[in-house]
Amino acid sequence: MVTRGRLFIQTPGPTNIPERVLQAVARSGIDFASPRFRELAAGCLHDLKSIFKTEGEVFAFAANGHGAWEAALQNLFTPGDAVLAPTTGRFSAVWAEMGRKLGLEVIETRTDWRSGIDIDLAAEILGRDRDHRIKGILAVHTETATGVRNDLPALRAVLDQLDHPALLVADTIASLAIEEFAMDDWGIDAALAASQKGLMMPVGMSFLALGPRALERTRSAQLPRAYWDVQFRLGDEVYRWFYGTPPEQLVFGLREALDMIAEEGLDQAISRHRRLADAVRAAVTAWGRGGALEINAINPHERANAVTGVRVSEPIDPEAIRSITRAEFNVALGGGLAELTGKVFRIGHLGDLNEAMIIGTLGAVELSLKRSGAAFGEGGVAAAIDRLAGTG
Amino acid sequence: MVTRGRLFIQTPGPTNIPERVLQAVARSGIDFASPRFRELAAGCLHDLKSIFKTEGEVFAFAANGHGAWEAALQNLFTPGDAVLAPTTGRFSAVWAEMGRKLGLEVIETRTDWRSGIDIDLAAEILGRDRDHRIKGILAVHTETATGVRNDLPALRAVLDQLDHPALLVADTIASLAIEEFAMDDWGIDAALAASQKGLMMPVGMSFLALGPRALERTRSAQLPRAYWDVQFRLGDEVYRWFYGTPPEQLVFGLREALDMIAEEGLDQAISRHRRLADAVRAAVTAWGRGGALEINAINPHERANAVTGVRVSEPIDPEAIRSITRAEFNVALGGGLAELTGKVFRIGHLGDLNEAMIIGTLGAVELSLKRSGAAFGEGGVAAAIDRLAGTG
Amino acid sequence: MVTRGRLFIQTPGPTNIPERVLQAVARSGIDFASPRFRELAAGCLHDLKSIFKTEGEVFAFAANGHGAWEAALQNLFTPGDAVLAPTTGRFSAVWAEMGRKLGLEVIETRTDWRSGIDIDLAAEILGRDRDHRIKGILAVHTETATGVRNDLPALRAVLDQLDHPALLVADTIASLAIEEFAMDDWGIDAALAASQKGLMMPVGMSFLALGPRALERTRSAQLPRAYWDVQFRLGDEVYRWFYGTPPEQLVFGLREALDMIAEEGLDQAISRHRRLADAVRAAVTAWGRGGALEINAINPHERANAVTGVRVSEPIDPEAIRSITRAEFNVALGGGLAELTGKVFRIGHLGDLNEAMIIGTLGAVELSLKRSGAAFGEGGVAAAIDRLAGTG
Amino acid sequence: MVTRGRLFIQTPGPTNIPERVLQAVARSGIDFASPRFRELAAGCLHDLKSIFKTEGEVFAFAANGHGAWEAALQNLFTPGDAVLAPTTGRFSAVWAEMGRKLGLEVIETRTDWRSGIDIDLAAEILGRDRDHRIKGILAVHTETATGVRNDLPALRAVLDQLDHPALLVADTIASLAIEEFAMDDWGIDAALAASQKGLMMPVGMSFLALGPRALERTRSAQLPRAYWDVQFRLGDEVYRWFYGTPPEQLVFGLREALDMIAEEGLDQAISRHRRLADAVRAAVTAWGRGGALEINAINPHERANAVTGVRVSEPIDPEAIRSITRAEFNVALGGGLAELTGKVFRIGHLGDLNEAMIIGTLGAVELSLKRSGAAFGEGGVAAAIDRLAGTG
Repeated sequence: MVTRGRLFIQTPGPTNIPERVLQAVARSGIDFASPRFRELAAGCLHDLKSIFKTEGEVFAFAANGHGAWEAALQNLFTPGDAVLAPTTGRFSAVWAEMGRKLGLEVIETRTDWRSGIDIDLAAEILGRDRDHRIKGILAVHTETATGVRNDLPALRAVLDQLDHPALLVADTIASLAIEEFAMDDWGIDAALAASQKGLMMPVGMSFLALGPRALERTRSAQLPRAYWDVQFRLGDEVYRWFYGTPPEQLVFGLREALDMIAEEGLDQAISRHRRLADAVRAAVTAWGRGGALEINAINPHERANAVTGVRVSEPIDPEAIRSITRAEFNVALGGGLAELTGKVFRIGHLGDLNEAMIIGTLGAVELSLKRSGAAFGEGGVAAAIDRLAGTG
Repeated sequence: MVTRGRLFIQTPGPTNIPERVLQAVARSGIDFASPRFRELAAGCLHDLKSIFKTEGEVFAFAANGHGAWEAALQNLFTPGDAVLAPTTGRFSAVWAEMGRKLGLEVIETRTDWRSGIDIDLAAEILGRDRDHRIKGILAVHTETATGVRNDLPALRAVLDQLDHPALLVADTIASLAIEEFAMDDWGIDAALAASQKGLMMPVGMSFLALGPRALERTRSAQLPRAYWDVQFRLGDEVYRWFYGTPPEQLVFGLREALDMIAEEGLDQAISRHRRLADAVRAAVTAWGRGGALEINAINPHERANAVTGVRVSEPIDPEAIRSITRAEFNVALGGGLAELTGKVFRIGHLGDLNEAMIIGTLGAVELSLKRSGAAFGEGGVAAAIDRLAGTG
Repeated sequence: MVTRGRLFIQTPGPTNIPERVLQAVARSGIDFASPRFRELAAGCLHDLKSIFKTEGEVFAFAANGHGAWEAALQNLFTPGDAVLAPTTGRFSAVWAEMGRKLGLEVIETRTDWRSGIDIDLAAEILGRDRDHRIKGILAVHTETATGVRNDLPALRAVLDQLDHPALLVADTIASLAIEEFAMDDWGIDAALAASQKGLMMPVGMSFLALGPRALERTRSAQLPRAYWDVQFRLGDEVYRWFYGTPPEQLVFGLREALDMIAEEGLDQAISRHRRLADAVRAAVTAWGRGGALEINAINPHERANAVTGVRVSEPIDPEAIRSITRAEFNVALGGGLAELTGKVFRIGHLGDLNEAMIIGTLGAVELSLKRSGAAFGEGGVAAAIDRLAGTG
Repeated sequence: MVTRGRLFIQTPGPTNIPERVLQAVARSGIDFASPRFRELAAGCLHDLKSIFKTEGEVFAFAANGHGAWEAALQNLFTPGDAVLAPTTGRFSAVWAEMGRKLGLEVIETRTDWRSGIDIDLAAEILGRDRDHRIKGILAVHTETATGVRNDLPALRAVLDQLDHPALLVADTIASLAIEEFAMDDWGIDAALAASQKGLMMPVGMSFLALGPRALERTRSAQLPRAYWDVQFRLGDEVYRWFYGTPPEQLVFGLREALDMIAEEGLDQAISRHRRLADAVRAAVTAWGRGGALEINAINPHERANAVTGVRVSEPIDPEAIRSITRAEFNVALGGGLAELTGKVFRIGHLGDLNEAMIIGTLGAVELSLKRSGAAFGEGGVAAAIDRLAGTG
């Protein structure tokens, strides 16, 4: 079956890459030791600071987001270190598992995968940790698998209140340039991100921002490392910035993406994400009046700007909905992961998007729901439009 | 003001060009005298026959659609020839005017720009033309400026009934690969088209298909010509096919577009256009329940698959609606032309489109209507979705 | 047989298109009635004036170079007008033929296709034309088919001396941004060009620049016209500038190309062409020491910056040389046209080129000569390098 | 200073990326969980086996080549394992250093950086290792920093003769699809490569091929790992193949590159590289007759197909040569690294190249040598042409 029209890739990553960025990654390579490439790469690393809102150092890796997870762990911790990993879904759980693989003692808390980090529980664990065995907290800002956004400032507040020295390490893969985030103001010690979400790029680059306490820690941390080692990357040669040959085309794309964010304004980009996310939630809420669908994230204040998990009940099969949207309407949605498999589909609403694309996406979902024969509340798209018009 | 997300170019040309076609036109040039280019170009000209549904000859010009108009006139007529031009809107009127500029006697009929060719009037004029001074009929299949589709077989029937030898020359610029069209079966002698509509290409190429009677006429027609002369182009050299250097990148794009049409199937492409057009009409009809909007094409059976003219009454300003959709929602609409200026805006629904894009487009229009403060019937997008679901 | 590496397209058009321009022509379309496109197109038309070095008007056509020929003729002449066409090769001969097809009386002079316009003969003909029946001179600046550059200022001088009012119409297709050319200073009344040569673009756009006398003439000239009519194009709407839908992607490419020329500097681009052309001539001269090859253009001061015709004697078969360079070395050369078929191959050295590409091209030719078993003078490439080094 | 013409990127990576591959990496993303992407990625991993000439498993990483080094070490070794690292230049030395960073005992042998691995010395060390403490040999096939190719089969022979169980791990970053290489036939246990060399792609992907003994080892090896862990990647989900989100655009590019290699034929690609490398060596040898330049690789049978290090004596400054080629001729060369800084420049001759590009590159170097005022033997380019013609 042939589909026509442009694919809307409404998974929560990969996302719709702007034509400008796609063209940038298609440029021929240049001598990476030339002044021109050096300036380009240095400018990108510099400008990323204003996206993270930090005066720390930002490092870029030829790797996907999981690579940035590893970079954070290896640079900040020592074998046997305890870290607190308050997991809230599939991705935070994989990060915690990575910590175990690398030789850390991971204290993992879990939730129902419908709500955010239990701050009180985290406070209790940290409060009991009188001798500060816990060296870091692995906190995912937005859990891509559930559509839940965690309260990072609340974690900072707990640490401050307890005067606990653990590093607060934030995964902003699904929140950077999508949600309010202010690394330095929020007291985040380290933050990591990836190229294919709010940065509107292809997959293949990821980032680690380190504040002064985290940078200091990289000097003493003992996990063996080479590829991800930020100390090596602090050098003066471009070769060192990327530990080997730089992924030039992705750097070209990053430059374009950063320019586009600057043109729109970071704050405007974030409020655009919020506006579009609100519209999606209005649609899902309307569909849910039939009882068989609901937003996975229970608490309204924890609903993410990047992605909405749509929880369905029988007889709705989320994979059937995804198949129809993809095959009939050229719209790609995310599926439920791990224990959410078969219970959830996910609508990504992040990156290079606007009202028309979101309404079109919701229209395709509404058509697919109708096509599937499922009972659901009518008027989801209409509710989204009302919300976007400020009248719903 | 920066917009984000991909522009929906819902003008009735230019249209949304598929990524595959855009990449094809960005390929480096090759030796146009090489076997590879020759085969490529010959294949395109051959395959275009199946799009026109003709066993005649198809010629391709480095030119826009107005160039194909001129090609048709110069190749088929002789100074002083009378032609019947039943105009129904701005574009057919310009074509008629072109006939006058080139030295033809143009018998122009007009309509209210809301309905199709008056077949009875045409029959009357042709019937009076006992000595066959009228050498051709310039018939636009779909008038892009009004959204009205004309009944070409009815014109053929008139000619047949009268046994009138005038050539039936069809402008299928806004209908080829969009509407049912069968050049040979319908008795169309000549048909012309352009690249940027149903063929999903950039502007810059246009086409003229000639059946046996038209080809015969090109041998005797006396309008002076060189660039458009099809007799010259019938030669064996690629140089002759394009009268000079071939527009290689556009040929590359044409190859890709023809492949895409073949993959989808021409009939499927046409029924997709009909389905999406129906959805747009459902939306406009719903909006029109408030009284201030209506479909410009009065007769339902004359409403085109390619474009819907939306006629608005005060206080709705169509240009204000267009400005909002463009500036706020990154959706480009067509405006009213000539005497429809300020009375009509046009929603293009042709080319590389699907349900999600159409719903998104309609969503942007609905939001713009709300934003403009105009009174209009609610539920346009919802009506479109119902229509697409087969329930509205 | 698969070739590898980037094709060097060393035909005298199409030429090697810079990546920046290729990417520009691959951008999605926009609303051509929007301020953004208007500004873009207006800027291009304005900046083209500085390339032609004129304060007149420049018009752009969706057409190849032959279209610009027709535009010049139709806008400037009246049926029955006499024009002097001093032809010097295949292309100037086709232009003269076009004049006849369009109804002009063409006074054609010919050469041996190895030297430039016979200025004395032109002077004689014009001198005899006491009643000024000759309304224009169709003068090709560089004859692409022969590699001969004509002396346009000498023609102007003849007209001035005779006080003859004929318009001097220059074809600068193979010279604009390649050779010194100064439309106003040289007293050229009209000049035409195409996109795929010095402007480094895909084929598909062509240009006509008109000085005050030519513009004045367009008001009285009587050849029937519509597509090419510049009076219509003088209007305020973008629609009029391109007589119909503008070829947006080509305009995007033109913008990029004009920016690139501005960055390099027009004078620098021209001296680069001269330098590279000199190197090619040094190579051909060296090869020719064996006796079987020589530069087609006999007079050194008439050798063009754009292309060198290489005249070969038996047993060298120029088509065999071309086949080898294409199939084995991925280098496309031009062939001999019309009466030069089988006697000449042509090395294009125009557009986006540098020393490395020219040396590589010459290397491929030299290898092909060796491969073909022909006797020729050794050391062509070495001679070119010496010339480029300023030592040969 | 503006350069014109296409940049020749004759560094030994990044290399000239074919237009087809550049276009592939510029395609919009798709749902990576879709059958279409799954099939694409599986096909690439499968087809890579025939490039490595192995029936083992191939893994692909979103990472540059240094990442593949780390992947090899972490998957195959246990903290405290001894590995033999016979270094022959900068890159093999960095890999050895990486082994130390990751906790291995690295037995490093060195050379003069002008010749290959001392096989006798390796045999001696392995022979003394009666209790098989040495668990692997880190052998670089082609040392990119010196242009020296090592004799991998000789290392295998040593191991076989000694019946030593150490794994033979080959870095084929600068040799895969460039030199003869047959992983299984040569008894290579593990081989790693990167995207930007013989595979003609952008930087950002790297590969690890494991034969049965190496795969078995990954089950017992104890270096902590997650991102590079191949056991995890053996799973059935696409997510696992890339440990996280797949770098889709690079996979698209890889598909195109593999298709291109299949079209040319792997053997043909390798003999093309040898032919072009021979030509470069002929040129350098000719230049060296003046005494101030020589090929860095002393032994002719160790000279690599991928890159030629050119050793220069005073007063030639290799960095000045590189600056001139880059700034004047748009040709990028590699510099000398580490202790070869200021003594060597490197001409990359790998990837998507042909005779014309190599001759052009050599021409630019010859011009730069002349421009620099250095004394050198004349006729380097001529010698290369003779070699390519089979006459030198």
